[in-house]
Amino acid sequence: MNEVSPAFTQRDVQRVRDHDLQRTTDALAVEEPLEIRVVSTHMKPVSVSVTMRTPGHDDELALGFLWSEGVIANFDQIESVRAVGPPQGESRAQNIVQVNLKNAVDFARLNRNFYTTSSCGVCGKASLNAVAQLLETIEYSQDDAKVSAATIHALPQTLRASQNAFEQTGGLHAAALFDASGNLIAAREDVGRHNALDKLLGSQLLQNDLPLHDKIVLVSGRASFELVQKTLMAGAPIIAAVGAPSSLAVDLAKRFGLTLLGFVRDGRFNIYSGFERII
Amino acid sequence: MNEVSPAFTQRDVQRVRDHDLQRTTDALAVEEPLEIRVVSTHMKPVSVSVTMRTPGHDDELALGFLWSEGVIANFDQIESVRAVGPPQGESRAQNIVQVNLKNAVDFARLNRNFYTTSSCGVCGKASLNAVAQLLETIEYSQDDAKVSAATIHALPQTLRASQNAFEQTGGLHAAALFDASGNLIAAREDVGRHNALDKLLGSQLLQNDLPLHDKIVLVSGRASFELVQKTLMAGAPIIAAVGAPSSLAVDLAKRFGLTLLGFVRDGRFNIYSGFERII
Repeated sequence: MNEVSPAFTQRDVQRVRDHDLQRTTDALAVEEPLEIRVVSTHMKPVSVSVTMRTPGHDDELALGFLWSEGVIANFDQIESVRAVGPPQGESRAQNIVQVNLKNAVDFARLNRNFYTTSSCGVCGKASLNAVAQLLETIEYSQDDAKVSAATIHALPQTLRASQNAFEQTGGLHAAALFDASGNLIAAREDVGRHNALDKLLGSQLLQNDLPLHDKIVLVSGRASFELVQKTLMAGAPIIAAVGAPSSLAVDLAKRFGLTLLGFVRDGRFNIYSGFERII
Repeated sequence: MNEVSPAFTQRDVQRVRDHDLQRTTDALAVEEPLEIRVVSTHMKPVSVSVTMRTPGHDDELALGFLWSEGVIANFDQIESVRAVGPPQGESRAQNIVQVNLKNAVDFARLNRNFYTTSSCGVCGKASLNAVAQLLETIEYSQDDAKVSAATIHALPQTLRASQNAFEQTGGLHAAALFDASGNLIAAREDVGRHNALDKLLGSQLLQNDLPLHDKIVLVSGRASFELVQKTLMAGAPIIAAVGAPSSLAVDLAKRFGLTLLGFVRDGRFNIYSGFERII
């Protein structure tokens, strides 16, 4: 348990086991709203998102979100990123992150409805086409990384070994980055699974390490369309999920040649796309 | 496995166990976008949300979403709800639901940023105050339902027994409604946990059974702020989660006297709020 982190807090609880009752306190993941504001050339700050997140690594969350939505396309656009506003609540977190960009931003893009713009109307194909538009902004290219099955089998255990006791209790989603040999590069947690991945990608953007051409992204839960979109935007060739993928996640991975692995646990996994990268 | 439902589909997969590889097909949960449109007095259709969901019970999803956001406050406001647009993709789902309402709607409410309107700015307290505003629209009142610990222990097993094999494989989130004796009233699944709960609440609204004054809501995963908000808006006195609650979920439940149970599994659970309803 990490008492100094704003990510955890205590609440009174009554534990019931069968018919026994015990009064105690329980450590819970903190959930607080975070507002992301963008300042670009000749514009006042614009609020682009409010998300419920676990405080910590908020600068990374903002940067990862803006990158995966196509607002930031390279490191040099970032002038500054900082928390603003007064400390809030028991976590004393500042709940606004302001990102100053050197270029002009098309804010209409963020309000436009990406999934309903193709000729088919509202459908999975339109959603895939919307991601294709986003990928053009970052000049996406496929990578020919190869990874062994043994390396994949070891990923969840490596992640768990890096987490503290609280983070293993199940209150948080995790996203982690590995090199092709299975060495852990970074891991981030959050009550929201999209936030965990945004933080992870933002941590790499802060070091000017995007795109992630030869890296593996691991997510602790299921692989949805949106998590695959973020992985594609980050340029990583492989996403591994401890849980199941959705149909549209598989279709999106196939369309862009991303390797998508599901049910990565207990010495097994399923390859849904990009078979050629697993040796 | 349910071959006729648009909720499931097949994809090629290579299963890896240790170093063995097997080519087969895998059943996956379908994920497709759904647009929710509202038509109110003297207005053209307004698109209020696009969500990635599993097709099926789309009318309920739309109604549950609009109720929990405070757009619909009673059954008599609903003139009609219907799928529109052409069948899309392999699921042949219609991906637009249009809800016609008899009254005028304040669409500014849906665009306004509820979590940043209080004097404290962006913080958990502002989020709680925003829910208080929503609850005024439905004249929320507390219920004095009592439930035994034995009834709570049995909920997850009752839900699982009602699901088919596919739904137990972990590709979908579930939300279920029980009476105070633990009898299952309804259950809904979706790739998105908010969608599963919206569908469940919408199913009850379609029968004019909201608010749920003496019922128990069970969710298959964690209890977030947003799931507690939806349960409050539905008027249910108890929410039970198989996973962990967040700090703000507990704070929200406490503020409005909702009973919040977490880790409901394996003959145990934790009571975080509303202790008096568990006997």
